[in-house]
Amino acid sequence: MKLHGLSAFPITPMDGRGHADVPALVRLVGDLASARVQSIGLLGSTGSYAYLPRQTRAEVTALAVEAAGAVPVVVGIGAPGLGMVLDHARDAVEAGASALLLAPVSYQPLREEEVFTLYRIVAAEAGLPLVLYNNPGTTGVTFSPALIARIGALPGVVAVKMPPSADAATEIPALRAALPADVTLGYSGDAKFAGALAAGAEAWFSVLGGLFPKPCLDMLAAAGDAERLAALDVRLAPVWEVFGRLTSYRVIHAAAGLMGYGAPVPPLPVLPLQGEDLAAVEAALTEAGLLE
Amino acid sequence: MKLHGLSAFPITPMDGRGHADVPALVRLVGDLASARVQSIGLLGSTGSYAYLPRQTRAEVTALAVEAAGAVPVVVGIGAPGLGMVLDHARDAVEAGASALLLAPVSYQPLREEEVFTLYRIVAAEAGLPLVLYNNPGTTGVTFSPALIARIGALPGVVAVKMPPSADAATEIPALRAALPADVTLGYSGDAKFAGALAAGAEAWFSVLGGLFPKPCLDMLAAAGDAERLAALDVRLAPVWEVFGRLTSYRVIHAAAGLMGYGAPVPPLPVLPLQGEDLAAVEAALTEAGLLE
Repeated sequence: MKLHGLSAFPITPMDGRGHADVPALVRLVGDLASARVQSIGLLGSTGSYAYLPRQTRAEVTALAVEAAGAVPVVVGIGAPGLGMVLDHARDAVEAGASALLLAPVSYQPLREEEVFTLYRIVAAEAGLPLVLYNNPGTTGVTFSPALIARIGALPGVVAVKMPPSADAATEIPALRAALPADVTLGYSGDAKFAGALAAGAEAWFSVLGGLFPKPCLDMLAAAGDAERLAALDVRLAPVWEVFGRLTSYRVIHAAAGLMGYGAPVPPLPVLPLQGEDLAAVEAALTEAGLLE
Repeated sequence: MKLHGLSAFPITPMDGRGHADVPALVRLVGDLASARVQSIGLLGSTGSYAYLPRQTRAEVTALAVEAAGAVPVVVGIGAPGLGMVLDHARDAVEAGASALLLAPVSYQPLREEEVFTLYRIVAAEAGLPLVLYNNPGTTGVTFSPALIARIGALPGVVAVKMPPSADAATEIPALRAALPADVTLGYSGDAKFAGALAAGAEAWFSVLGGLFPKPCLDMLAAAGDAERLAALDVRLAPVWEVFGRLTSYRVIHAAAGLMGYGAPVPPLPVLPLQGEDLAAVEAALTEAGLLE
């Protein structure tokens, strides 16, 4: 499979008592599929995978795969222990997922050889295409370009999800040259994605796209038109501002509530935005034309 | 309960196939109890709690509590999600643990109010005395002195486990003054513990003590004798050197193998020390008089 285009990363709507809000989840995933996103990134960081016990992750995956219909679902399987990672992979296979997303969730800081070993074993044993999920802000692991290339060359690895780059114009051609041609090079970090797209990013692993796919699909369609791409990006600047200030994870949970997908709250101990912060999210969405 | 003195943090011996090595675990915990450590810190960072699924953690706790006899067992319950933390707490209560050890394991970087909320809820609901486990190196959470004081004042919190301090002589009196009198102020970071002890640390949460309790108990007994304390600490300097260079977690797993507690390996993706590194551990233990 190729993971080009928009990989929409929805939240996992939770009801505040530790259970998934099933109707909200099914509606959210169904709406993303109807919007014709290229894939759905279920149980990514935005989807709270790290906070949910195995059984909940398995249930959410089965529901989402059904709601997504023909749209491939890529499922986050990360955990500190390899045994837990392989359990999550088995559950995802069982639930009908199309690919697996693996961040090197760590507790003891990992050495480069340990990170490689994790991917080597999972790529060989998991039974589904694997995406390298590079997210230093949450995992504490920094991937060197050499390690990315080494993991990208493993049979079974189909894509790399990079964090936002301070210098996409240099980074992307270098990584592209270092990776096998059939491995998709994609980026997260919505606020900087226009720059990554202009520099050759092939997929957008998007938080915003997990709730508002249309403006993200529009940006991807404008890849060859620098002026239009810039205009679409500027329009979303108020959203990028609150993402940067309040974190995209907290903002998109608040936004999902404002958009009527239940009353989603992040899993404790992460607290929902309230008061002025919540008002700032509402104002930013309104200014960006995402909320009427 | 008061957690003064040596809190010995054993590894959880694993067999390399994802299962606890039960005979080695029972023998290790039994040997610590026979050495009359003041408490056993089960499933701490050294005990690999973050890598083990709920069921394994529950089984290990039940076995260790039985093997520890009259020595209180403090059990690590940390996990990213509050729901999982409370599940682990219930399991520990059920298994007969004496207290709970909670590090703010995070995925999304936590705000100070979120860290406080975690401790507030767990202290109120967990049903056992709670120890604040301050471990920035593995959790990424830095506790301000004000936050430590605020959590220390919660009913149910009985001790604070601090990371090694660069300036114990200033830090310890300040924290002691800020904490309620009945909350134990203890330190981890074996290589710097002599300094913390001289500055008033009341408990030693020790990696070395989880395998070699005798030299640690000797150091605690020398608290009032600066010259003897320094001599005992210097004797262990070769161990502190390999702890610093190879990490105490990896070193103590190798040392447990050398001491005959099975063939313990850290849970994958953490790799066991080999070759030169393993030889360096053996040499350090020999030089420190811990291995014949």
